[in-house]
Amino acid sequence: MKRFPNRLTFAWLRDSYAAGELTPCELAEEIARRAEQYASYHIWIDKPSREKMKAYTDRLPKERNSLPLWGIPFAVKDNIDLAGVPTTAACPEYAYIPKENAAVVQKLIDAGAFPVGKTNLDQFATGLVGTRSPYGEVKNALNPKLISGGSSSGSAVAAALGMAAFSLGTDTAGSGRVPAALNGLVGYKPPLGAWSVRGVVPACASLDCVTVFANNLEDAAEINRLARGYDEDCCWSREYPEPKAKLPQRICIPKDEPTFFGDYARIYREKWEEGTARLKGLGPEIQYMDYGIFAEAAKLLYEGPWVAERWCDLGIFAEQHPGVMLPVTEEILRNGDRVEYTAAKTFGAIHRLQELRREAKKVLKDAVLALPTAGGTFTRRQVRDNPVMTNSQMGLYTNHCNLLELCGAAIPQKKNDEELPFGITFFGTADAESLVLGLADAFLKAEPGSQL
Amino acid sequence: MKRFPNRLTFAWLRDSYAAGELTPCELAEEIARRAEQYASYHIWIDKPSREKMKAYTDRLPKERNSLPLWGIPFAVKDNIDLAGVPTTAACPEYAYIPKENAAVVQKLIDAGAFPVGKTNLDQFATGLVGTRSPYGEVKNALNPKLISGGSSSGSAVAAALGMAAFSLGTDTAGSGRVPAALNGLVGYKPPLGAWSVRGVVPACASLDCVTVFANNLEDAAEINRLARGYDEDCCWSREYPEPKAKLPQRICIPKDEPTFFGDYARIYREKWEEGTARLKGLGPEIQYMDYGIFAEAAKLLYEGPWVAERWCDLGIFAEQHPGVMLPVTEEILRNGDRVEYTAAKTFGAIHRLQELRREAKKVLKDAVLALPTAGGTFTRRQVRDNPVMTNSQMGLYTNHCNLLELCGAAIPQKKNDEELPFGITFFGTADAESLVLGLADAFLKAEPGSQL
Repeated sequence: MKRFPNRLTFAWLRDSYAAGELTPCELAEEIARRAEQYASYHIWIDKPSREKMKAYTDRLPKERNSLPLWGIPFAVKDNIDLAGVPTTAACPEYAYIPKENAAVVQKLIDAGAFPVGKTNLDQFATGLVGTRSPYGEVKNALNPKLISGGSSSGSAVAAALGMAAFSLGTDTAGSGRVPAALNGLVGYKPPLGAWSVRGVVPACASLDCVTVFANNLEDAAEINRLARGYDEDCCWSREYPEPKAKLPQRICIPKDEPTFFGDYARIYREKWEEGTARLKGLGPEIQYMDYGIFAEAAKLLYEGPWVAERWCDLGIFAEQHPGVMLPVTEEILRNGDRVEYTAAKTFGAIHRLQELRREAKKVLKDAVLALPTAGGTFTRRQVRDNPVMTNSQMGLYTNHCNLLELCGAAIPQKKNDEELPFGITFFGTADAESLVLGLADAFLKAEPGSQL
Repeated sequence: MKRFPNRLTFAWLRDSYAAGELTPCELAEEIARRAEQYASYHIWIDKPSREKMKAYTDRLPKERNSLPLWGIPFAVKDNIDLAGVPTTAACPEYAYIPKENAAVVQKLIDAGAFPVGKTNLDQFATGLVGTRSPYGEVKNALNPKLISGGSSSGSAVAAALGMAAFSLGTDTAGSGRVPAALNGLVGYKPPLGAWSVRGVVPACASLDCVTVFANNLEDAAEINRLARGYDEDCCWSREYPEPKAKLPQRICIPKDEPTFFGDYARIYREKWEEGTARLKGLGPEIQYMDYGIFAEAAKLLYEGPWVAERWCDLGIFAEQHPGVMLPVTEEILRNGDRVEYTAAKTFGAIHRLQELRREAKKVLKDAVLALPTAGGTFTRRQVRDNPVMTNSQMGLYTNHCNLLELCGAAIPQKKNDEELPFGITFFGTADAESLVLGLADAFLKAEPGSQL
């Protein structure tokens, strides 16, 4: 049997299958072995099982080329339904066993990929740290003392530690991007509605989307092509054309230096400067812009009535099961039940947001916005000591995204950065996936030494 | 000078201009004369003035063919800005003098049309009767004892009594359709966002749109082509392709007979039966369907949190100016300030609506829904005696439309019906304007005797 690389890529898997050096069954065996090896990382809620994986790989057709994702293993965040396996949303009392796969999971299985297990998350996908789970704090793949980022913590770490070639996350506030940055992955967040959310536990339903983590941009972009599409049975589904990567005319960068925080602020700042320097050489005009509208939109997510949207879907469960949620999660959700959030104020905030969307659309016409994915990171202990403040800081450059109906690609600044990965996110309007993917590709290819 | 027809059409005006039998100045003179003749109809808040009209017609280029709407007169509902003329929304204390034209008004003037005056409306566009105005009850153009329908009452009657070749209304609950039906006009309601609402007083901002009344479908369709278009300065604006009229594959008709009400219920029922019989001969398959989702959506408009959206925009004015609104209007708006409308319930209603939109989209795929525009009508006295109930009944077949993101064409069942006009509305999804216009055209052409 071939020696496995630390991280699985589609190219390595396909080459190995083509050379007859690997079978899906052998791969599943290695994945199960790694899951045991990394048990202390708390990656899984339903961990990779040889039998369950075999049930999928046994059904693969003989002809590899008949299915685009033949034999590609993927991990599923445990707020996304996998038929026959409990969906917990990291709250065991909430668990139910879905009969059907989430629409996106079904598409990927139909394309030949096989699910390896269900991953840990910040409970009810509420958090950006990866520690808010009764199933344990998910450790960072590169430095176990650090947080993994959340809420799609387990999915990210599963892909970063070679237990999946890609994984599914969800993203409302930044859950599909922060963990990508902290574990050296690519995280792609499609526009709202481009991928079906049928079979996904709602966090803040009008702003939720399913996302992908992968070890390179090509793999993430391939999943974006295969997972997307209008779903007439999903009320949030929308039609978008398939993206064709191309460079934007302009790259927008905040004119004021972003806020960097925590013990690694200095290193983060240096990496951001390296990143922006690299962006200048890519061709598109650099435009330094006022970040005000994006910051204002970001604040609406937790300081405005959208917390009530979380309460509207999960409030009944919270009321019927007092004390079963993590205290920090329940406190955030209960904020949505506060009397000062009236219907009239909600519409007022919706109108203001509509105005901000219009302004963002104007600013980002033919352009892509570049921001640090996160402005810093924390040790798991620091988050334990100060759970709310640390979490808020992680969302400083992510929270605006879904409210403003943007798409985003979270990219590692440097390939294989085993010490302290730093990520940049490229944001575009919902119809500008092509520009986001085009710029991300150019940025990665321009990394010094990356062509070697 | 040529003898003027009772109703102005683009064809008659263009023929008369081309034959040298009419000048815009003579036309303006006749419009001003008619405005005096019909003064007791309470059509105008700012009535047609020879001087003001002259200021526009004097600026028209010599070459008629250089502008598509050269010399075409139009009326503007008084919740839509006309530069230099007060916008009152039928509440004199609310009045302000706009410096700029509403985006749509500007487009039409740029195309050569000239505004003749500002029309009366149900105060703050809240109502479907045309009697809720301190500027007087707008009388029906054909039978002055009857209501004109609202809220775009003055605009409809101005077009029906030959003081404008087309007029602008607005439509949140049905204000661009009910007055069309009651005065024997075509009323076209584009999809939300297809026409800019910049410079329009909000009623329920996420559901408001500007509409057109005209004396035939061709004229309404021409205005739809010229008034539409993405406006980057309007946060509700969306991009839609230009419609090309074609027949749908199916015509949906409620399987249960619609509710007809009031003194004319019997005649309305007969006319609806004639209408559905005519639809059967047009080619598309007739599908009898459950009207449930449309009825459920309709109820959300006044019985759900959307009244709070009205309060969110007009509440400050109401609080600062107690007692200046009509009691019935203020009572409806104040319903939006009720404590039971929480933010969480608002999001719950938004989610339910999103589900209804999805179902409507599925039902109306390649199809058009036909309904009576109104299920009956009332005398002005009946509305005075029972202002809330009568108004609700007028919205029975209109209220669902904007919540479900549909477009609609309200069509007279019979041309030149001088006794009791009855209207049918054809509804399609936002991307199905082509089907709505195609079916409306086929329906009108199939009227017995219409080809004579």
